[in-house]
Amino acid sequence: MKKILILGAGLSATSLIDYLLDNSDQYDWHITLGDLNIDGARKKLRNHHRAEAVTFDVTVQDHVEQTLAGKDLVISLLPARFHDVIAKECLNRGIHMATASYVSPFIASIHEEALERGIVYLNELGVDPGIDHMSAMKVIDRIRSVNGVINAFYSFTGGLIAPESDNNPWHYKFTWNPRNVVLAGQGVSQFIRNGMYKYIPYHKLFDRVLEREVLDAGMFEVYPNRDSLKYRKVYGLENIPTIFRGTMRRPGFCEAWNVFVQLGCTDDTYTIENSESITYRDYINSFLRYDREKAVEEKLCEYLSIDRNGEIIKKLTWLGIFEQKVIGLKNATPAQILQQLLEQKWALHADDKDMIVMQHEFEYELNNSHHRIISSMVYIGEDTINTAMAVTVGTPLAIACKLLLTGALKQRGVVVPTSPDIYNPILDELELFGIHFIEKEEIIQVH
Amino acid sequence: MKKILILGAGLSATSLIDYLLDNSDQYDWHITLGDLNIDGARKKLRNHHRAEAVTFDVTVQDHVEQTLAGKDLVISLLPARFHDVIAKECLNRGIHMATASYVSPFIASIHEEALERGIVYLNELGVDPGIDHMSAMKVIDRIRSVNGVINAFYSFTGGLIAPESDNNPWHYKFTWNPRNVVLAGQGVSQFIRNGMYKYIPYHKLFDRVLEREVLDAGMFEVYPNRDSLKYRKVYGLENIPTIFRGTMRRPGFCEAWNVFVQLGCTDDTYTIENSESITYRDYINSFLRYDREKAVEEKLCEYLSIDRNGEIIKKLTWLGIFEQKVIGLKNATPAQILQQLLEQKWALHADDKDMIVMQHEFEYELNNSHHRIISSMVYIGEDTINTAMAVTVGTPLAIACKLLLTGALKQRGVVVPTSPDIYNPILDELELFGIHFIEKEEIIQVH
Repeated sequence: MKKILILGAGLSATSLIDYLLDNSDQYDWHITLGDLNIDGARKKLRNHHRAEAVTFDVTVQDHVEQTLAGKDLVISLLPARFHDVIAKECLNRGIHMATASYVSPFIASIHEEALERGIVYLNELGVDPGIDHMSAMKVIDRIRSVNGVINAFYSFTGGLIAPESDNNPWHYKFTWNPRNVVLAGQGVSQFIRNGMYKYIPYHKLFDRVLEREVLDAGMFEVYPNRDSLKYRKVYGLENIPTIFRGTMRRPGFCEAWNVFVQLGCTDDTYTIENSESITYRDYINSFLRYDREKAVEEKLCEYLSIDRNGEIIKKLTWLGIFEQKVIGLKNATPAQILQQLLEQKWALHADDKDMIVMQHEFEYELNNSHHRIISSMVYIGEDTINTAMAVTVGTPLAIACKLLLTGALKQRGVVVPTSPDIYNPILDELELFGIHFIEKEEIIQVH
Repeated sequence: MKKILILGAGLSATSLIDYLLDNSDQYDWHITLGDLNIDGARKKLRNHHRAEAVTFDVTVQDHVEQTLAGKDLVISLLPARFHDVIAKECLNRGIHMATASYVSPFIASIHEEALERGIVYLNELGVDPGIDHMSAMKVIDRIRSVNGVINAFYSFTGGLIAPESDNNPWHYKFTWNPRNVVLAGQGVSQFIRNGMYKYIPYHKLFDRVLEREVLDAGMFEVYPNRDSLKYRKVYGLENIPTIFRGTMRRPGFCEAWNVFVQLGCTDDTYTIENSESITYRDYINSFLRYDREKAVEEKLCEYLSIDRNGEIIKKLTWLGIFEQKVIGLKNATPAQILQQLLEQKWALHADDKDMIVMQHEFEYELNNSHHRIISSMVYIGEDTINTAMAVTVGTPLAIACKLLLTGALKQRGVVVPTSPDIYNPILDELELFGIHFIEKEEIIQVH
């Protein structure tokens, strides 16, 4: 019998837990689910005879030692900053570990030790990072296998609201961590285009969007991610002249979001004076020039050259940023105030469905002709429990754990899913869950 | 005999050293000048019989202990980050200390201990901070003494090129630390206007300028400083509805500098790929959209809505940012590359003179009428040794030291020059050096 420990029983854990429970009899697994909230954890286990819930606090070293003792595999769904504590304990005890998160510098540093102990750290096995790696590498490896030369790689992902639940002018709701959405893109975004390095400062990011159509899901716009360049190494595309990764939103989102960026509303580095007692209207006004006569709306439109009757101002007005409503948050940063407002307006309703959209574009040369492959995936969630986000994060991670525990996954050390022995079985099984990519290939003219 | 130790014999030390040497016979002072470069220090002492130079390295604890031993006063002109080491040693040994720099958190924390030991830490005794505090407080105290109520305080300072040496389209040369000029304003700038707090993010700072005329020195523009709000406490203006501090440049500077800010050229947080081998033109292009056909100049003008034949593009072209000249700096940040270029173009020539401009504006109510006092100072340097910057930084500090050593300055603990016992004698003596404020008072209409 293999003993699996899952740490964290939050929203994103449901699909993973269900998958492992459903397969536990067949493969002879015992599952322990650790969470601060043991009652919540118990509920997720549905009284399954092969599972138990335990109280787990990662900040208590005794919990870490006692809960990990005797396990074969730990799956950490804790916030990413806690992974290193678990990784260290796994190394001491010779336990495999799996997460959906990026490889941390600490985990990267223990590759050799993990190899020596014969254990594996499976990382980046969610949707982004995760399904993006696997689906891209499958196409990249196929192009290489026929000696095609890849000249450009674009990759876009978006966590969005499903069309049937899209009923606000932003065409957006929070389907994941709101704080990350508010702070997204801060710093500089870097990519390379036809051999030219490009750097976009945060205050220009939402002004530098691409437009894309994806299958029958309609039009999207894409703003650049910070980290496109590092994927050259991850994907073995060291000399590729064009690589660009981006985040998808519905058309019109970025130009309206850019208003918040331009004003300074997404700044999380200082607090607004009297933030508990001022109104949202005061808050917006604090970023605008002083004027004895002009209204806040008028000053905003002049300051940022916005059409007074256009789509941007409609989106902003719908959010309530011009209302004389008291904020009521003490010592809040501009970003915290904005997040509070957005959480009220962009909340998922009980009958809402979310959607994950992903699209890769590959341009390559083969036999003196130029080709483009577009590989696209649209996945709509079932409900607010089995969201697209939870399913696409939890399922590939669960499948990878099954591959490991059944001996099909033989790599050891620190691993990301960029090799066919991992991505092929996972992508194949994901299709059974309705997570599949549709490919289109065309010959293109290149200047 | 009083023993004075001056640490640092750099450019800004000349006026201070000369003042102390010139007064040393009269007041029976002995002066030690410590610097890493003992030959440079010797030259500044002109073989004066009351002075000696010593090799001093602040990072060597033995130097700190041995050089400070037996001194009555240490004047630190070292980079501000080294002041705390000196301050600690002064506290241990019961030595007075003076600097032109802002009170550091550490120095602020030892006020009580300094009082107990009967020593004084004199801080912020240069031009800005320094002369700004003194000249403003003199007016503020005078208005208060007749029970006037101050409703607004604006204060602007600029370190600029003198009109007779102003021969470039930016009307600017480096008269002080170039790195500080390139990075100036990063973060958020805060002030208060008619009771309304205002926050300006860095990317909007150079778009939010005021215009001012100063005496016969002509027109200037002013961009907001980061820290206006803290001066409410420093000046005892806690409830003032309007307070604004800013930095002066010649008209047209800010809109052109804003191009660098918008592009991201002043970012010091990451390095540009291949920065040693690319050209300045490539560097500018790396912040612009990819386009197979358009020239860099054309893309820039479109991106930032700049007139292709206007003043901004003239200033930029004059700097050489569009030239195919190799940068030759390894692993350089955007800000470092920009600084290197500017240092070539904005260098002071051997016969150039610099200029310090300062202007305060006070609005106050007295006997039901509203008044405005404008207090202005323009000081032009003698040459590239006795620059306006060196004289206005070094002279008030030197005078304060004289006041201390002759017993006229009786305060102990951590002191900034905001009280009349300090600012009156210093401002009076500064007039002998030609550093004086011209006041204009008028009745104003208030809405």
